[in-house]
Amino acid sequence: MLTKEELPDCPVATTVQLIGNKWKLLILRNLLARPWRLNEMLRSIPGISQKVLTDNLRALENDGIITRTVYPEVPPRVEYAVSELGDTMRPIIKAMEEWGLNYQKMVRGA
Amino acid sequence: MLTKEELPDCPVATTVQLIGNKWKLLILRNLLARPWRLNEMLRSIPGISQKVLTDNLRALENDGIITRTVYPEVPPRVEYAVSELGDTMRPIIKAMEEWGLNYQKMVRGA
Repeated sequence: MLTKEELPDCPVATTVQLIGNKWKLLILRNLLARPWRLNEMLRSIPGISQKVLTDNLRALENDGIITRTVYPEVPPRVEYAVSELGDTMRPIIKAMEEWGLNYQKMVRGA
Repeated sequence: MLTKEELPDCPVATTVQLIGNKWKLLILRNLLARPWRLNEMLRSIPGISQKVLTDNLRALENDGIITRTVYPEVPPRVEYAVSELGDTMRPIIKAMEEWGLNYQKMVRGA
């Protein structure tokens, strides 16, 4: 969670500080659907490297937006999921999805 | 506008391709309120450089999300505004604003 000192005055800037890059938005899109493992997420996001993916996952985990669960199997299974807080971001991704759907129709119809 | 070839299959990725970085989101936040001039925008977005601001404004203009109008005054006045297409992104920024407001309340109450 951001501290009071780190919190921007602007509500939009607050949200942008937590999820304002393309990778975090695409990770959140995935995790709002279901839990994911690292490798399948790596394959599902074109152009992302493992380092950039793990850096962004760690940032989202530190900010309390996603959870990382290690299942004690051999080899250990690690799953990422949205936290309760992350789940409240659903309307943002939903608004992006709806806008993208309309834009796709426009481009394909052009 | 993106070409059919540049268009991602995923609607969320489509939107992210157009406005998926913190600067574009903050620029859009400003322009959804009213038209802005370059210098006042530079002062209103902490940490942005003039080059990064103009690069992002140019990208948004090329993608048809904002307009750039030069008024023939001495010195010429340049104003940026959302286009009709950009205005349809209002629900995305609105969802970010609402989420940010709730998060601010949570942090300040903590």
